[in-house]
Amino acid sequence: MTRHFLNTQDWTRAELDAVLAQAARFKRSPAGDALKGKSIALVFFNPSLRTRTSFELGAFQLGGHAVVLQPGKDAWPIEFDLGTVMDGEAEEHIAEVARVLGRYVDMIGVRAFPKFVDWSLDRQDRVLQGFARHSPVPVINMETITHPCQELAHVMALQERFGTTDPGSSPGQALRGKKYVLTWTYHPKALNTAVANSALTIATRMGLDVTLLCPTPEYVLDERYMDWAAKNAAESGGTLQVSHDIDSAYSGADIVYAKSWGALPYFGNWEAEKPIRDRFRHFIVDEAKMAKTNDGVFSHCLPLRRNVKATDAVMDSPNCIAIDEAENRLHVQKAVMAALCAPELGAGG
Amino acid sequence: MTRHFLNTQDWTRAELDAVLAQAARFKRSPAGDALKGKSIALVFFNPSLRTRTSFELGAFQLGGHAVVLQPGKDAWPIEFDLGTVMDGEAEEHIAEVARVLGRYVDMIGVRAFPKFVDWSLDRQDRVLQGFARHSPVPVINMETITHPCQELAHVMALQERFGTTDPGSSPGQALRGKKYVLTWTYHPKALNTAVANSALTIATRMGLDVTLLCPTPEYVLDERYMDWAAKNAAESGGTLQVSHDIDSAYSGADIVYAKSWGALPYFGNWEAEKPIRDRFRHFIVDEAKMAKTNDGVFSHCLPLRRNVKATDAVMDSPNCIAIDEAENRLHVQKAVMAALCAPELGAGG
Amino acid sequence: MTRHFLNTQDWTRAELDAVLAQAARFKRSPAGDALKGKSIALVFFNPSLRTRTSFELGAFQLGGHAVVLQPGKDAWPIEFDLGTVMDGEAEEHIAEVARVLGRYVDMIGVRAFPKFVDWSLDRQDRVLQGFARHSPVPVINMETITHPCQELAHVMALQERFGTTDPGSSPGQALRGKKYVLTWTYHPKALNTAVANSALTIATRMGLDVTLLCPTPEYVLDERYMDWAAKNAAESGGTLQVSHDIDSAYSGADIVYAKSWGALPYFGNWEAEKPIRDRFRHFIVDEAKMAKTNDGVFSHCLPLRRNVKATDAVMDSPNCIAIDEAENRLHVQKAVMAALCAPELGAGG
Repeated sequence: MTRHFLNTQDWTRAELDAVLAQAARFKRSPAGDALKGKSIALVFFNPSLRTRTSFELGAFQLGGHAVVLQPGKDAWPIEFDLGTVMDGEAEEHIAEVARVLGRYVDMIGVRAFPKFVDWSLDRQDRVLQGFARHSPVPVINMETITHPCQELAHVMALQERFGTTDPGSSPGQALRGKKYVLTWTYHPKALNTAVANSALTIATRMGLDVTLLCPTPEYVLDERYMDWAAKNAAESGGTLQVSHDIDSAYSGADIVYAKSWGALPYFGNWEAEKPIRDRFRHFIVDEAKMAKTNDGVFSHCLPLRRNVKATDAVMDSPNCIAIDEAENRLHVQKAVMAALCAPELGAGG
Repeated sequence: MTRHFLNTQDWTRAELDAVLAQAARFKRSPAGDALKGKSIALVFFNPSLRTRTSFELGAFQLGGHAVVLQPGKDAWPIEFDLGTVMDGEAEEHIAEVARVLGRYVDMIGVRAFPKFVDWSLDRQDRVLQGFARHSPVPVINMETITHPCQELAHVMALQERFGTTDPGSSPGQALRGKKYVLTWTYHPKALNTAVANSALTIATRMGLDVTLLCPTPEYVLDERYMDWAAKNAAESGGTLQVSHDIDSAYSGADIVYAKSWGALPYFGNWEAEKPIRDRFRHFIVDEAKMAKTNDGVFSHCLPLRRNVKATDAVMDSPNCIAIDEAENRLHVQKAVMAALCAPELGAGG
Repeated sequence: MTRHFLNTQDWTRAELDAVLAQAARFKRSPAGDALKGKSIALVFFNPSLRTRTSFELGAFQLGGHAVVLQPGKDAWPIEFDLGTVMDGEAEEHIAEVARVLGRYVDMIGVRAFPKFVDWSLDRQDRVLQGFARHSPVPVINMETITHPCQELAHVMALQERFGTTDPGSSPGQALRGKKYVLTWTYHPKALNTAVANSALTIATRMGLDVTLLCPTPEYVLDERYMDWAAKNAAESGGTLQVSHDIDSAYSGADIVYAKSWGALPYFGNWEAEKPIRDRFRHFIVDEAKMAKTNDGVFSHCLPLRRNVKATDAVMDSPNCIAIDEAENRLHVQKAVMAALCAPELGAGG
């Protein structure tokens, strides 16, 4: 069966550690030929700056080539359901798209955000799953309803700050027992829960003591990811709790990770959520809140609206590692591609 | 004079056979340096998935580089008529675009679908012809009112199924005398006749016994292509006939190639054609029709609307070679580029 | 401090001459490895044909790779002001965009035309300046309110026509004392003054006897560029004058460079300017005007509307060097990238 990178949860801890170790090697020494003559199709259903640039450059630096495709924009719109009579907008079916791309390229990256109308549909992640089902070559999640590449970049930045990425030691040890706060922040639009789902998943996987801070129980994440997190914490020796109290959540935190997302009970009904969300603008990450932490580091996946999600002072502080995290996207994605395409490097399953 | 690849009809049979033989070699051994340091501009006036990906990767695999341009989208709109006062939308003239690109790149690929308003204009193929007239470097047709790259990929897939692509033998022999049905199918929109024109052209060229199956005489193709086909059949020892009878057309067929297109007498007047077209939804390629064939293979150029043009069962059958044909786009286009740019490979005129 | 290429005016004459000499070497011998493993982000806020193609190919020919980004189209819209509460359209801040890109790539090219609403804002060039302020890697102006890459390509084409680009001699000598006319031409829309600002800047820098020909004093350029030009002429031994008289301006000219632009006093109020502009359609460059010159060469930066800015006869004349100038974009930009990224080549500061 074809090996994909759809979620970190599908990979063992040892496999993830090997990818992180390879990423650290790529950071020290960017050039290589692990992908010499190989190629990846980057299929974007949504905009991208970091993902696009880092995947494209990552392929180049390893001797490969990335083809950027934007279905419905410069390529044809695609049908994902099986058995349908395709008399609507879609001009072709994922069965053909994935199989044809799989004849051309060695890997397929997919970015497909939720449609934000019906969470019960969006949570099926059918674009990504459609590619994974039909593609004969490895598929990489470039952000759908989770964002596993961001998870790895995030963990790598934390390991750099708190410990070692030396392959000889156990980087996981460096993070164990640290207090990690994933805080919801305000944003004028209801956003994807992908990075929040992912942060919760990977932080619990790494044995951190995780607090999910959000305004009300309505902002708790989908049970699939809450379940993953609980299971991960149990296995890794970490903890997981939900809090709606800003002061106690920030108190003594070693790591503050911020993200805005829409409340699932109002999914697709955002006008009803808006007045609720608007009451919680004070969830912004500012200096006063960061002062309650244990000289904590701050990060965010970017893009970030300054002075809405976090203040200029927080973003420009030496404790902000968001730029390091963004840089690490390049290194971890090279390691993921190498693991899928050139497993002899020792970075993958 | 600069050698272009605008239509297979402009190339001798020996040249086409050499390109197909080179394509077979590239399929066995994809990497090379025939285009080392060389480049191609891919000028898309319309969307693309396969063409874009296969040309871009083909250039990469041979050491070259493709630049993708979309005039009117991320480049400037272009004027194609000579002698006009350019006070409309177009910001520059093909005379400059083609000559400037020709200073930068070694080849120019052009995709320019008909505008679907006036066939007497569209049949002049003026975007492609404008590039060919003004460009100092070879121009490749990436689908305008014909689709010669698709023709080669199609023939290559047929040769793989029915015979040999061994350069020592005559691949054309393998197809001679086979019954080939080009069938019109329903589609909710009136589509380009390019692939139909091309299928008719190349099938007759290869000595097949060709039946053009379409609902009514109004769906017969433009006389230019009907004339090419008649001439080709006469020269190659094949045959050409038009049929409106599904049963007799499918009966004993070795090859069924499907395509939808708009009826030329209603060109630009599609509302009038729509009720006519809607009466022929039963032209869909299904298992019952395929059962009448001589265990025939099925293909289509893609994109294809499942259960509109062909049923899931036909598409997912082992007799469907559409994915092979799509893959072959990569190989034949590499061979065309090499023939135009590195003729010492022996693949071109 | 990071070295950028924002304007030729920031570089010494010796540095510009070195870049031009390197460009001439690249024209004779295009392949190289000055950018081996290196990369450039090409950030386009506006369309492009030549700039995009020539930068992308230039990077490729020197062993590097260009990533093309279009913020607000396939990337996120960007905020450029400091200290703002980002609750509008922009999803991220230039501080993050520039710093993150600077972690991925070795150079950043920026195209950002004026917004054409308020010249007092546009003349701050804040997109380019924002990148330059925040980027840790060199930033290259790909046309904002000036177009320095075009300047170098223009001068290179003039040196090729009038003298020598041999690095042993002084190419500037070849142009000194030639009569250079920068003529405004009609265009149905009010256009950017960037190329006009740039032509004035570089022509005076090179010691030419420069006449700015425009319909009325309202079409004189911004004082920043008029001041640069006056200072340059004083230093280089050239001259600068403004003329509204077509006959005397063309009389004896060695070089005619055409460009259309909007009159600054009507900036953003184009409906008021339109009837004025419409009275000057006769500024078109035609054979009668060129006959008054000293067998002068003609050029334009392209795109050009034929028979609006210049007639077919002028464009197709052997004295037209616009295609050479466009080709030179490739060579000079390679030299600029090499100067910024591989200064050991000797082409830059």
